[in-house]
Amino acid sequence: MENIIREEMDAIGSLEIKPTVVVPGELWKESGRWDSMGEALLRVKNRLGADFVVSPTAEEAFTSIVRDELSSYRQLPLSLYQINTKYRDEIRPRYGVMRGREFVMKDAYSYHHDDASLDEHYQAQGRAYRRIFKRCGLTVIPVRADSGAMGGSGSEEFMVESEIGDNTLLLCKSCDYAANVEKAECKPDYSPRLSPDQAKEAAADIPPVEKIDTPEVKTIEELCAFLKTDAKSFIKTLIYRAVNVELDLSGAPGCGNLTKHKAAPGAPETYPEAFFAVAVRGDLDVNEAKLAAALKASEVTLAADTDVIRVTGAPVGFAGPVGLKTAPLILDRTVTGMNDAVTGALEKDKHYRHAAYGRDFDGWLAADIRTVRAGDRCSACGGELYEKKGNELGHIFKLGRKYTQSMGLNYLDENGKSHVPTMGCYGIGLDRTLASIIEEHHDEQGIVWPVSVAPFHVVVIPIKYQGAVKDACGALASELEAAGLEVLLDDRDERAGVKFNDADLIGIPWRIVVGDKTLAASRDGKPAPQVELKRRGETEARLVDIGKAAAEIAGALRRELAELDGSLIQ
Amino acid sequence: MENIIREEMDAIGSLEIKPTVVVPGELWKESGRWDSMGEALLRVKNRLGADFVVSPTAEEAFTSIVRDELSSYRQLPLSLYQINTKYRDEIRPRYGVMRGREFVMKDAYSYHHDDASLDEHYQAQGRAYRRIFKRCGLTVIPVRADSGAMGGSGSEEFMVESEIGDNTLLLCKSCDYAANVEKAECKPDYSPRLSPDQAKEAAADIPPVEKIDTPEVKTIEELCAFLKTDAKSFIKTLIYRAVNVELDLSGAPGCGNLTKHKAAPGAPETYPEAFFAVAVRGDLDVNEAKLAAALKASEVTLAADTDVIRVTGAPVGFAGPVGLKTAPLILDRTVTGMNDAVTGALEKDKHYRHAAYGRDFDGWLAADIRTVRAGDRCSACGGELYEKKGNELGHIFKLGRKYTQSMGLNYLDENGKSHVPTMGCYGIGLDRTLASIIEEHHDEQGIVWPVSVAPFHVVVIPIKYQGAVKDACGALASELEAAGLEVLLDDRDERAGVKFNDADLIGIPWRIVVGDKTLAASRDGKPAPQVELKRRGETEARLVDIGKAAAEIAGALRRELAELDGSLIQ
Repeated sequence: MENIIREEMDAIGSLEIKPTVVVPGELWKESGRWDSMGEALLRVKNRLGADFVVSPTAEEAFTSIVRDELSSYRQLPLSLYQINTKYRDEIRPRYGVMRGREFVMKDAYSYHHDDASLDEHYQAQGRAYRRIFKRCGLTVIPVRADSGAMGGSGSEEFMVESEIGDNTLLLCKSCDYAANVEKAECKPDYSPRLSPDQAKEAAADIPPVEKIDTPEVKTIEELCAFLKTDAKSFIKTLIYRAVNVELDLSGAPGCGNLTKHKAAPGAPETYPEAFFAVAVRGDLDVNEAKLAAALKASEVTLAADTDVIRVTGAPVGFAGPVGLKTAPLILDRTVTGMNDAVTGALEKDKHYRHAAYGRDFDGWLAADIRTVRAGDRCSACGGELYEKKGNELGHIFKLGRKYTQSMGLNYLDENGKSHVPTMGCYGIGLDRTLASIIEEHHDEQGIVWPVSVAPFHVVVIPIKYQGAVKDACGALASELEAAGLEVLLDDRDERAGVKFNDADLIGIPWRIVVGDKTLAASRDGKPAPQVELKRRGETEARLVDIGKAAAEIAGALRRELAELDGSLIQ
Repeated sequence: MENIIREEMDAIGSLEIKPTVVVPGELWKESGRWDSMGEALLRVKNRLGADFVVSPTAEEAFTSIVRDELSSYRQLPLSLYQINTKYRDEIRPRYGVMRGREFVMKDAYSYHHDDASLDEHYQAQGRAYRRIFKRCGLTVIPVRADSGAMGGSGSEEFMVESEIGDNTLLLCKSCDYAANVEKAECKPDYSPRLSPDQAKEAAADIPPVEKIDTPEVKTIEELCAFLKTDAKSFIKTLIYRAVNVELDLSGAPGCGNLTKHKAAPGAPETYPEAFFAVAVRGDLDVNEAKLAAALKASEVTLAADTDVIRVTGAPVGFAGPVGLKTAPLILDRTVTGMNDAVTGALEKDKHYRHAAYGRDFDGWLAADIRTVRAGDRCSACGGELYEKKGNELGHIFKLGRKYTQSMGLNYLDENGKSHVPTMGCYGIGLDRTLASIIEEHHDEQGIVWPVSVAPFHVVVIPIKYQGAVKDACGALASELEAAGLEVLLDDRDERAGVKFNDADLIGIPWRIVVGDKTLAASRDGKPAPQVELKRRGETEARLVDIGKAAAEIAGALRRELAELDGSLIQ
């Protein structure tokens, strides 16, 4: 698998290097991620007290190496990769190698003088990824999405369907739209967005907003029953805590005493902490990834109860947009179409009804921050969306100048003027790719490796490893190796059945069985020693002349490899 | 280089696996090395407070994996290897990748039911190592030695000569004896060892031991001048502190209140700390590696002054064997032949003369603990020894049951009886091997890679990458790749001279230059496009028909590879 990746990376002009896994913490401080990365970053102090990081990713390491070497525009574009150990200090590693703390990644990083050059290499990486997965025998779902918070302008994830998938994908039944739920958009099922003035006009016939008593009403369901309405008429308002907010909050409600800080010299200025009221239609959920992207925050989490009480001035459960002055109000686009809504009244056991956007409240920011779900309509074609669980095997990503800027990477152009290059990153998780191949290629007996990634092409199994059988197996193994095949000779002192089962379990594509009986075969009265040949996955073995076995398997393998390699998606 | 190693490991039946680099500290506590390994072991606490180790070596990790799988004698012998990142928290990393904190190692571990099986695999590893280094174009010096303290019964280091070598080697001018100075022995230049009684008899004619005043005499040189004698007549006595001493010290002088402890449940019992007086002939040095081996200690260091004063009852500089009762006296074998010696008198400004072994003092232990030096005589043939600086690239080692015992690895024999397997380990440092190849294969222009490990086999250099030259280069590169060669096409916008120099610096074995002029060549009035061919290291390029270049280089490469691979040392 590593070699397939190497061939495809080399073919698009990416060069392999081997940086260290344990890197100076200093580099992560330069980029600001020493602070922003959270606890998944395994930090180490060495014997001299210096900070180190066991790399979970290598934007810093590569940018630091390139910084030492780059001087002229002539050196760009530059694409480098490694296949190396990575570490994430997961709280709950699970699903074997699918989400382990330590894993092996191919990660490439590219540097460019402009967006067009970045885009060209980004597209080449995407094509290489399709070829890599195809050659590994994998069916991947490429998922395009804007990358939001990271400051980039494009990313694509390569997913495989899996029952134990970490990701939820939204796919369209009618077109090839596919998106991670964290990014998925859908066709609005609400009126087109109105300006506050238009909304005010549209609300002319709506009765004035009215405060009502809602004692003992705790949930949206109870409220709907109480008011004989449905969740779609309700505006759900949640208080979120956001960290490292890059958005400008000067003048925003409740943000008067916030000031921006720099986590690191080259990092952008951000507010370390800010609270937001986030409103979404009552039947929908807030999507935290989309919300974080809209706020340009590194992370958002639901606020603690004490913070909710402080921001809303009411017990938990009565937040609402009308009259809220203590935090910036973020409206999901669905809310900007609502003009006769029920919502919390910022007071215990009180709600408003007939609340109208534009007339009774206005947002500080309106954005698409809702979670899309099965049954929603495709934003591309209007078809019905459905959900699948999936795992991300690869990710290509336009990073822009986030790292090159903060770490001070420069080059001189034709006129001797200094510029900061733009950057892309491109990762493949090898362990999970391997696991996914097994998930896609197995049966009740075990693994059925595609020949391109099989640990051995062929296993030679002697019924009993002695005498003429032993000699024949040795000769056959040598012949197979000479034909360029990777051969496992099962020389164990085990019963034939055990060896057959193990070969099936391990999933070696071709099996040759050699026994006294097959060797003693004759044709027209002359000795014509044979062996038993079986392709993994087939039920029946067949006898072939021992002298023809190697050539037959070599030929079949070449055809199978060509099939995997040949239909390249260019 | 990795693939050469893989081929040779696979050929001797060692199987590649990929354990993690960051491993639970628990395993190292089981083996006892969590405590004994010292500060070079990079210890990490993860977010949950659990101890981890960034592996410097993997006896524990492999033994733990095998422990989970091994049950029957039928599974033995078992040999596994990895090519993986290692980490040593060096205080002073130096010489680039020769001694970095992080490095890549091939480390194999084998498990056996008896010594004969271990020895068979150990010998196979040794042969594989010779082939690996030969195929990499390296001249190695295999250095055999007993492994001493580790409890093993054999080891062999594979050294390369280097001016910046970490190791001092003693080599014989007359035979193939080669040894690391830490282990080197020499032919004794003293009388054969006498028993204390024989020594007493031999000392009959020596005047009685006599205490003399030696005021203001600080060094051996001053003492020799003062007494008009030479250093060979002096017994130098040093006080050493040893940690984790496995040797039984019950009844030894000064050791009455020492008790043995177990560092870990499965570890051997050792004395955490003990002090020894170590005597060696005045012109020689104590070899700490040999001393540690003789004491079965994990480490020995010269005692601090306060400890010297406590043990000898005198200021520093007056230690001596006569009358010493406060520490076990360790005699180098040279001292057991001395019967008219000068030595410290355990008293300020006093020495003894006429001190005789057997008559005036006796050792608690006598052993070969001196450092051998150039000019000493070969223990094998009596020839003269000389010194070379060298670096260790590989090490094969019979570990015995140190880890299998302490970590509780067992298997059941034919009769259902449980046994602890014996173990071997086999390492190659890849970074330093790579650096050593460059050290052996370079000239003033740069690296001259052996074809077997060159990053590319051939570089295609266009004089100017445009028009017909560009097309010809592309076609040629494809043809070379189709012939199985690894090709670098230098498509940079640089002057030809820069590209030539870089190709030499990087050291790519074959260079093809394509220019308008060579393409325009004709023969008999017909176009006969040519290219310029040059083997790295040769001074002159020559012209060949463009259609023949690929075949010619492929042929030459195959011959060179066969030369490196073919003359295998079996």
